[in-house]
This record gives sequence, C-alpha cells and structure tokens, in this order.
Amino acid sequence: MAISLGELASRFGCELIGDADSPVDNLASLDGANSRSLSFLSNPAFRNKLATTEAAAVVLRPEFAGDAPNACIISDNPYASYAKMAGVICPPPAFEPGVHPTAEVSASATISATAHVAAHAFIGDNTTIGDFSFIGPGCVVGPDCEVGDHGRLIANVTLARKVMIGSRCILHPGAVIGADGFGNAMTPEGWVKVPQVGGVRIGDDVEIGANSTIDCGAIDDTVIEDGVRIDNLVMVAHNVTIGAHTAIAGQCGIAGSTVIGKRCMFAGQSGVVGHIKICDDVIVSGQGMVSKDITEPGVYASSFPAEPVRAWNRSVARIRRLDKLSERVKKLERDST
Amino acid sequence: MAISLGELASRFGCELIGDADSPVDNLASLDGANSRSLSFLSNPAFRNKLATTEAAAVVLRPEFAGDAPNACIISDNPYASYAKMAGVICPPPAFEPGVHPTAEVSASATISATAHVAAHAFIGDNTTIGDFSFIGPGCVVGPDCEVGDHGRLIANVTLARKVMIGSRCILHPGAVIGADGFGNAMTPEGWVKVPQVGGVRIGDDVEIGANSTIDCGAIDDTVIEDGVRIDNLVMVAHNVTIGAHTAIAGQCGIAGSTVIGKRCMFAGQSGVVGHIKICDDVIVSGQGMVSKDITEPGVYASSFPAEPVRAWNRSVARIRRLDKLSERVKKLERDST
Amino acid sequence: MAISLGELASRFGCELIGDADSPVDNLASLDGANSRSLSFLSNPAFRNKLATTEAAAVVLRPEFAGDAPNACIISDNPYASYAKMAGVICPPPAFEPGVHPTAEVSASATISATAHVAAHAFIGDNTTIGDFSFIGPGCVVGPDCEVGDHGRLIANVTLARKVMIGSRCILHPGAVIGADGFGNAMTPEGWVKVPQVGGVRIGDDVEIGANSTIDCGAIDDTVIEDGVRIDNLVMVAHNVTIGAHTAIAGQCGIAGSTVIGKRCMFAGQSGVVGHIKICDDVIVSGQGMVSKDITEPGVYASSFPAEPVRAWNRSVARIRRLDKLSERVKKLERDST
Repeated sequence: MAISLGELASRFGCELIGDADSPVDNLASLDGANSRSLSFLSNPAFRNKLATTEAAAVVLRPEFAGDAPNACIISDNPYASYAKMAGVICPPPAFEPGVHPTAEVSASATISATAHVAAHAFIGDNTTIGDFSFIGPGCVVGPDCEVGDHGRLIANVTLARKVMIGSRCILHPGAVIGADGFGNAMTPEGWVKVPQVGGVRIGDDVEIGANSTIDCGAIDDTVIEDGVRIDNLVMVAHNVTIGAHTAIAGQCGIAGSTVIGKRCMFAGQSGVVGHIKICDDVIVSGQGMVSKDITEPGVYASSFPAEPVRAWNRSVARIRRLDKLSERVKKLERDST
Repeated sequence: MAISLGELASRFGCELIGDADSPVDNLASLDGANSRSLSFLSNPAFRNKLATTEAAAVVLRPEFAGDAPNACIISDNPYASYAKMAGVICPPPAFEPGVHPTAEVSASATISATAHVAAHAFIGDNTTIGDFSFIGPGCVVGPDCEVGDHGRLIANVTLARKVMIGSRCILHPGAVIGADGFGNAMTPEGWVKVPQVGGVRIGDDVEIGANSTIDCGAIDDTVIEDGVRIDNLVMVAHNVTIGAHTAIAGQCGIAGSTVIGKRCMFAGQSGVVGHIKICDDVIVSGQGMVSKDITEPGVYASSFPAEPVRAWNRSVARIRRLDKLSERVKKLERDST
Repeated sequence: MAISLGELASRFGCELIGDADSPVDNLASLDGANSRSLSFLSNPAFRNKLATTEAAAVVLRPEFAGDAPNACIISDNPYASYAKMAGVICPPPAFEPGVHPTAEVSASATISATAHVAAHAFIGDNTTIGDFSFIGPGCVVGPDCEVGDHGRLIANVTLARKVMIGSRCILHPGAVIGADGFGNAMTPEGWVKVPQVGGVRIGDDVEIGANSTIDCGAIDDTVIEDGVRIDNLVMVAHNVTIGAHTAIAGQCGIAGSTVIGKRCMFAGQSGVVGHIKICDDVIVSGQGMVSKDITEPGVYASSFPAEPVRAWNRSVARIRRLDKLSERVKKLERDST
C-alpha cells in the first residue's frame, strides 16, 4: 500500500527529515531499495550502506540522520518503528468474509459474519470464530474451541479441542494446538493412557510458528499468556505456562508442568525439563538445557561450540580422564608436603 | 460420563472406602476438585493437599487412606488405576459410523461399516480401515495402508503408503507415517535419490504424537512394536525398530537402521545415531546422545545442565586448556621424582 | 516394473556378468532377495551375505564379482548405481493428469495440462504448477507460488506464499515452505511483528522431508540451491542460503541469515546460529552446535556421547571443579620452584 512519508512518520510519532509528500509502497534492505522503498538502519555496522542507498526514506537513530542521502525518519528504536510502519505498507492479505462452500462447519458452531472460513476447513461443534478472523484452507478447528477477533490460522493448522485463543493471534501452517499431552502410567502390562481432559488457553497477540505443537493440559489448561512469540517446530508440553511476552525460538522444547516467566527468551534447540519454574527475564542460549528452577534473571548456557573433530575428541577424552588427573594432582600435593 | 464409585472400584479390582453409590463425572486435581470429581494422589509430596480436597474420591496408596476427607479408592499403583478409571469417565469422543460426503475414498479401499471417515479425508487405493476406527478431518491415508480396529487418526494425519497399523492406535494431528526415508547416494554430480520401497509396521496400542514422523523402510519395513508411546515432533528414521512398550519423549530423534529394545525411555530432545543397537530397559536422559551400542540396562546421559553464562564460558575455556593443564601436571610429576 | 539385467546395466554404463535376459522387478536386501530381485553390496562388511543371496543380480564393486552366486552388475559406486537402477524398477507412482473435482483452484492460477491436482488441494492466486507435477491430497499452495516441472508435493504440504520451486523437487507430507520468519522487534509494550515480505527460492532436484519448515525471507528471499537434501523436522529460518548439494539430516536447525556452503553435511539434531557463514564441504556431527563462521572444510563436532549416568555426573562435577584443580596445579608449580 502506498503511503506518504509524512503520514507514516506522524502516525507513529517520529520526526521526518525530508519531503513529507514522497510516497513509499515497498520494504527493502538498504542495498535493494528503490525510490519508493522504506528501509531501516538498526545495526550501526551497516552505517556505510547509507551513502549509496536509493531508499525513499530510512528509519534510523538520530545520530545517523546526517548520513542518509534521501529522507529519513528518526526513532530511538528504529527496528520497532520500521516494524510498525512496515505493517502499514505491507498489511496481511485482505480477505472476503464468508464460509467457502467446501468448508465443513458444524451446525452448533458460531462464525462471525466478518470472518472467513476457507476451502476444506473444518469447524467443530460449539466452536466460535471471532470477528475478522481468517481460518485458512485445510485448517481443522475441533469442538469447543474459540478463536478471538482478528485471528489468522494461515493453512493446515489444527486446533484439536478446547483451545481458547485471544485476539490478533497468528498460527502458522502445520501448528497443532490442543493435542493430547504425553500422559502414560506404567503397569506390568505396559503403558496405560492417562486421559488428557484439559484445554489450552492462549492470550492476545500471540504468534505460533509452523509445525509447532502445544499440548492440552492433563486436567487443567496449558497456558500461553499475552504477547508470547513461538517459532517453528517448538514443543510445549501439557500443563506448561508461558509468561507474557516470552519468545521461544525454533525447535525448543518445554517439558510438562513447567512454568516460564515473562519476557524470557529461549534460543534455538534449547530445552527445559518438566515440573520446574523459571523466573521472569531469563535468557537461555542455543541448545541450552535447563534442568532446575531458575530464580535469578540473566543469561544461562550449557552447550559447547563446535570445534574441528580432532580437537573435540581430545577434549572429550581429557574430560573422561579428569578423575585420574585429579588424583595425580592430589598425589603431587601429598608428596610436596 | 457419570459412574458410581462402587462400580469404578470393582471394575478395576480396587478397594473402595466410602459410599459406593456416590457418582463421579469429572476428573480433577486435588485442588480443583468438586463433589463429583475423581482425583488421585501419586506423588507423596502432595499429601498435604488431601486435607482440603473436595473430590468425591481420591485414588491413593493404602498408607494415605486415612488422610482422605471423603471417599478413597485404594491402589498400589494409584496413577495407573486413576488412568484406567479416567478412561471410563472421560472416554474418547463418540462418533457416528459412515463416510462423510466430502471425504474422498478410493473405489478399491475397504472401510468398515462401523468406521468413520471425516470431512476432507482421503483414503487411497487398496487401503483398509478397521472396525470402529476414526479417520479425522483432513487425514490422508495413502495407498496400500491398513488401519486396525478402534484406531483414531485425530486430524490432518498423513499415512503416505504401505503403513500397517494394529488395533487401538492413536495418531495425533500432523503425524506423518511412511514418508520416504533419507536415502541418498553421493555421486560427482550430486545426490542420487535411493528409492524407499519399504513400509511401516506399527503394532497394537501404539500412540504417536503431533507432528512426529516415522519414515518407511528403504527396502524392508520400519517397525514400531506393541504399546510404544511416541510424543510430539519425534523423528524415527527408516529401518528403525522400536521395541514394545518403549516411550520416546518430545523432539527425540532415532537415526536410520537402529534397533531399540523393549521398555526403554528416551527423555526429550535425546538422540540416537544410526546403525546401532540399544538393549531393553535403557533410559536416556534429556538431550542425551547415544553414539554406540548399549548392552546394559540403566540410565545414560550426556548433557550439561545450564549455568549462568559466565560460569559456563569459564568451564568451556577450562576444557579447552585441559591439554595444557595435563602437561603441566606431567611436568610437575617429572620434576618431583 | 520388470526390466532385463542387460538393459539395466547398459542404461547406466555398467558391466553385467550373467544372463542379460534375466528380468528383475523388485528391490531387496541380500537376505530378503528372490529370483527377480535387484540387490547391492556397498558395505564390505556384508560381503559374507553374497554366498547365500537369491538375488537375480547384485550391484557391487569389481573386487567382489567372484563372490556373487548369480548375476552381478559391476560398479565403482555400487550404492549410486543401485539407486539409479532402483529408480527404474520402482518409479514414483504414476498419476493421471487433471484437477480433482474437490480441489480448489484460483481462477488466476495456471495448472499444466499434464499436472495432477489431487483431492482437497488448494491452489492460490497467480500460482503456476508445471508440467507433470503432482500436487497431492490436502496440499495448500498459496498465492504467487511456482512449482516447476516434475515436482511432487506428496500430501498435506503447505507453500504459504511466494515460494518458487525448481524442477524435479519432492516435498514430503507436512512440509511448510514460506511461512513467516521469526521477526520481532522489542518495545516496552512487548514484541512488534516485523512483516516478512520475502519469498523462498528453491532450485532443481531438491528434496524436503516430512514436517520440515523453511521460512520466507524478511525482505529478500530464503534460498535453497540445486540438489539440496533436507530430512524431516528440519528448521531453516528466514534469509538463510543453503548451498548446492548440501544434505541436512533430521531435526537440524539453521538460524536466520546464515549462509551455508555447497556439499556440506549436517548430522541429526545439529544446529547453526544465525548470521554466520559456513564454507563449502563442512561436515557437522550429530547434535553439534556451530556458533561462529567456519572457513576451513572438515568435520566439526561438539556433542558428548552418552555414558552411564553416574560416570557422566562425575564428569560434570569434575568440570565444575576445573577452576579449583587449575589453582591447585598453579600452587604446586609455585611451590616447586
């Protein structure tokens, strides 16, 4: 969508330096921009690219304003300001309200007149789809679910049952919410399935990535609070609570009944064992494994960076001989006294 | 479903202390229970919650019977007894037999008259769906498959081809069974695909989690024996065998041609390399990586618990200097003689 | 498909020792072969199985020709030659061209007359499906996509939008290509979504495993070059480039904006952090974590092999005391001078 720089800047409370009437209608990196592009400079390392950018305007911090060849929009948080403006220039695709004739909708479901239910979607009994929500092709929304207003289930998303989703949530393709948790009781004859009768409650403004899975609670609900961001292929087990505005990167796993605080960040492939509690503002680095309560905000880590395999194998061997090394030191200490 | 405590207890061979006529119709934690709830006490740490629970009855071990304020059901394995009783109170959702008009069923497929094939499901050539089985919305069951009796493919499950599934199996949404294994032969011009012509054989009473994948065998079948429990986002590669009653938690990966014994347990994000053999009754802890045969039952581990990042980085640096530390000790030993 | 040994051998430039007219029509291991099977010997460890195989012919290296009881086909790369011949004997399933009546195809889409669009598939606006391509049941191909010739989207695959796929690509069930990258800008009020407006460009002869996800670029495209092989449950984040003929095994994750070279190999569950560069011909072992640029070809590793838990816990404890051990050695050194 084309919009003038003046309107963009004023809508988000930023100062514009340049022609307020210039239009922008696309987003670009500094390198790839044209005369109708909005671009941004967030990482100062790329400052040298400002000189040659053709962008109509660059969103940047005040100290870089002098370097922009064309217009610039001043912000103390240029990445966030760019994100908001980008959402105006490139809004999510529009859709017509209505239920596609190939969709299968239960007679007891309630679909807002402003919602769209796409081809081959399925809406189960007693389920409600809110205003301006989009249920994409191939989505299955099981019984007793609720999708709030302005929700978007892109395609092939499954809400198994008893999944309550707030407003403005985005669920990417293949996400599965509300499937049975992994509840099994051991007996001499093998496992007995423990019925999983809880649901999943998801707050407002939550985004869930492609092929991620969030299981229903065993008895009570699994809870994802407002503003949580979950990347692709993430596993959230039954009875977990994820605090507001926590971000969880790709392939992380949170085991059952764990409670995660607010504004935490989990880097890719990290894991958290079950039945523990992590306080607010904790950051876990890539492939980290959290195995007990964390009560202090901060950064936590436990993974080794890859090395050439010979060096690494030597380290592994040394670690295995640490006991012996320690004994040799003890002997030296004894001998030296 | 409402059922009397007396009938519940007698059906599963447990002693009831309390009014046999009291009905229960829901499952609850000790905290959340009401006068028609069945609850349980498995972990003695929660014993203090017994005093205030409003549950109609609590399933518990004999030594705690005196602490229950209302009725109790005595069991030496209260979690398993609760699981069985819970399955009666909250059975899987009922369904009508029949093929939904929007489902697409091959003329050569055989669908039991008591099975349900839901909206937008697809059933391929020569495929058989057994008695009382449920093929949920959006499921794709490819050619030459067999789903046994009382099976449940919840929604958007894919059986690619040549997948044989026993009785009473549950496949959660997004699970993909029988896709091609990762078979590639290197040539100077790049990879050549190795056709994957085996199938997948799954026993009785197997449960497979959301978005997990089990590949078909390259030539022979991939095999999942009776009673195996697989959680979400698990990867089982081609030609693997998983022994009966083994449980595999979320995001584990088992590489090709590996043979896993019976009653093993794999905690979340653990991995097993290909072409090895793991004996019965092995437990692998979270993020563990099994890289060679295991011939002795027991618990195996290889992951570090996360620490504050500064402490962790110091450990990493120390490990990298272990060679030097070892040499210094050697020098001290030489000098001391 | 039945084919004579003579034709097989000559088609792929191999020498045949045995009856050129003998037909083969199935693939088998040396153990499981019958008189119409093609088998192969790639790993010399299985050489002893040659004596008893019933295979019509075995593809093998010249030095083993004397051990084959029946015919043999000589190749310096028997696994690759077998793979090519196997592709002739067991070609992918044939299909009729045409659009299934239950498929939903946009009026602005272009479907080749030789392509197949299966039941309950969805083809979005301005999307093109090339010659002889197969779009399986339940697949969703969003707007502005292009699937080249001879492509196969097996079932329940999702191409979200702006996904360009070359010729002869295979996408296994549940794969999601082109979903939004994980772009979030932090503000005091929580995360702001950064619109993801790039696409995904995939070369020729690429294979992508079940339930893997490849996100669209934030601004420019995510790129997968020719001949890349991606296994199941792999995560490729936004703006990544994967070089030609690189192979990525199950559950690997490549974080955003990383550039991977050609002919690399990533073993299962390995990970690569964002914004780095890995040169050609790098191999990363299972569960390895690459945290900085790699500029030299070779094998890299960082994961421990699992040990019995008591030995492992002792190693962990020793590592945590390394600081103290180092100090003790320092003291000994001081004392000894």
